[in-house]
Amino acid sequence: MPGPLEGVTVLSFAQHLAGPFCTMLLCDLGAEVIKIEPPGTGDPARRNFPFIEGISSYFLSINRGQESIPLNLRDERAKKLVFELVKQVDILVENYRPGVMKRLGFSYEVISKENPKIIYASISGFGQKGPYTLKPAFDMIAQGMGGTVSITGEPGRPPVRVGFSIGAGLFSAIAILAALHESQKSGKGQWIDVAMVDSQVALCENACARYFATGEIPKPLGSRHPLMTPFQVVPTKDGYMVLITVPEEDFQKFCNLAGRGDLISDSRFQSSKDRVANYEAFEPILNAITKTKTTAEWLTLLEQAEIMCGPVNNIAQVVNDPHIKERGMIAEVTHPRAGKLRVAGTPMKFSRTETEIKKACPDVGEHTAEILSRMLGMSSEYLEELRKGGVI
Amino acid sequence: MPGPLEGVTVLSFAQHLAGPFCTMLLCDLGAEVIKIEPPGTGDPARRNFPFIEGISSYFLSINRGQESIPLNLRDERAKKLVFELVKQVDILVENYRPGVMKRLGFSYEVISKENPKIIYASISGFGQKGPYTLKPAFDMIAQGMGGTVSITGEPGRPPVRVGFSIGAGLFSAIAILAALHESQKSGKGQWIDVAMVDSQVALCENACARYFATGEIPKPLGSRHPLMTPFQVVPTKDGYMVLITVPEEDFQKFCNLAGRGDLISDSRFQSSKDRVANYEAFEPILNAITKTKTTAEWLTLLEQAEIMCGPVNNIAQVVNDPHIKERGMIAEVTHPRAGKLRVAGTPMKFSRTETEIKKACPDVGEHTAEILSRMLGMSSEYLEELRKGGVI
Repeated sequence: MPGPLEGVTVLSFAQHLAGPFCTMLLCDLGAEVIKIEPPGTGDPARRNFPFIEGISSYFLSINRGQESIPLNLRDERAKKLVFELVKQVDILVENYRPGVMKRLGFSYEVISKENPKIIYASISGFGQKGPYTLKPAFDMIAQGMGGTVSITGEPGRPPVRVGFSIGAGLFSAIAILAALHESQKSGKGQWIDVAMVDSQVALCENACARYFATGEIPKPLGSRHPLMTPFQVVPTKDGYMVLITVPEEDFQKFCNLAGRGDLISDSRFQSSKDRVANYEAFEPILNAITKTKTTAEWLTLLEQAEIMCGPVNNIAQVVNDPHIKERGMIAEVTHPRAGKLRVAGTPMKFSRTETEIKKACPDVGEHTAEILSRMLGMSSEYLEELRKGGVI
Repeated sequence: MPGPLEGVTVLSFAQHLAGPFCTMLLCDLGAEVIKIEPPGTGDPARRNFPFIEGISSYFLSINRGQESIPLNLRDERAKKLVFELVKQVDILVENYRPGVMKRLGFSYEVISKENPKIIYASISGFGQKGPYTLKPAFDMIAQGMGGTVSITGEPGRPPVRVGFSIGAGLFSAIAILAALHESQKSGKGQWIDVAMVDSQVALCENACARYFATGEIPKPLGSRHPLMTPFQVVPTKDGYMVLITVPEEDFQKFCNLAGRGDLISDSRFQSSKDRVANYEAFEPILNAITKTKTTAEWLTLLEQAEIMCGPVNNIAQVVNDPHIKERGMIAEVTHPRAGKLRVAGTPMKFSRTETEIKKACPDVGEHTAEILSRMLGMSSEYLEELRKGGVI
């Protein structure tokens, strides 16, 4: 059974990360994604190391299943091809800096004249409007400006980034599918504008909510939850684990399990709110308890007592975890040259329109002839002419 | 102009965070979200501090715009109401632990008999299948098990969490809208299964990709990018800023700007890859340079030189930033008792079906009479009877 977006076609001018992450989501769901790239080197992300048999693992991970047509967008013949292609697709995704698509002659205004029903999604650092619109940005800029860095890391230590670089790609996919739904009824497309910085602000909604309620600026708290404790990573005899005593009764269960029933009646630690308020006194007591046993010992005990807990897995442990494997979260794709390669799978599981991740990332131009002849009925002679002219 | 999901109706059994974050996204886009809650106290998240006029800011932030009907789901009359309501909605969202909806009599199997076209989304810690399916989880468990904690924070320091708790809600919204698209063609609904842990694995795709390519376990790197440097937070005379020297020529520009042209020819620092490999030698040199000027001085200089840079904003700076404001990223909602309240807005901007975030979160039962009379034609007498019986 094909994925739920079977039959949906996406023309992608996406490169680097945010755009391709969005088109990857659509592709994983069954959409056909045709990636337009500069002839020769293609998407700059193809040059990000490490490589497997010359294939960038960075590029592979977010471009699996997509199709590649290189086009020299400054050539008039290439421009004509784009205009022919946009007539036949449902969605266009681009993440150039604002203004670039317009300069290339592919603004929403122009493209929507060719295909009024097209959903045209622009992903950028700061969005298509606003004082910073023309500033360049990679994800790290957005994490810094959007507040994410300010609430991640240890108190009093240098700022850290979130270990992954994602936000705008997810919001863009949601916006695209919402607009696609609407266009089925109205017959009209529209222009979607998603900014990476805005996306970080949206992800920081809870920190914003706390600030709006109290006027206090949220700070990084290590692994602690801002409102509850224990709700965090704690040290064990041989490493770390996650411990959460919610609901409140679980804290009492935990104290009894640890042979520290005395803490239950300690007025400083009565409620989670008290423990947050008196965290400086609470932390050494908590850590001394959790350090008495190994992670494995604790997890067994805590699970028996039905107290919420879990390991802190590294990536090797994650990808080899039997549950993660059984969930299909490690997908195997087949590359014509490199053979079987692994990528992180999709967390979107469907009972009927099951999704499949089977194809690797394309080589630059791998699908040029196939797509241009299928979609535009192009002759092999003209293809050859374009190739010789450096257009494709 | 209403949002793109105007006319779409969602019945929500969502509580705490992941489920309501998903329904918030749909609601922001114009869907009507009817939230079923336990009578009296409602969603447990309503008790999370801090409060504004008795309203949990945590709850407000992710339940704005939604409608509330309290239902005692163990009462047969309430069950009957649910069966009537599901016939009239497009989407059902629930994030109970797997098995709970079935025990309540609302499994996908049962509900889809009442409404074969319904998109039924289950969000849970570990998913509906797999060895850990019945384990409980809040986001921190998923961040720990799914690899996120292992790649976030400083090297050699205790693990930290990502300062926000989001992932599954975003993937669920995408999956729901993809299934909604498919159901318009097939006339059939389906069951969606999104796990919080799976979602973290999917977000860690780049760390997984690096591990698959090299076999090396990705480690936390503070604020550094795993593949490039400078691509990180650096210290300045009065704080921190983000500095990114991509493409490679920008590093040379930066060295010249800093009066350290000598570094350009230093064989240890030739390429970004060299600087990553020799980071221990590179870091003190870089930090010594960036500490010579204030953040404001650097940002001016770097912007003039067209080198990518940005501030590290705290939440107060974020919500007061003119660009963030102009982007509509701070929405003002009106609460009947508390008046005007602020929440983080949506990063999904549409040219035609503009989204509006105007309504605050509902009180428990605020919409009971309105919805049950409008959707089910319920008489005020029967409403009163249900109320007296503790059903609503």
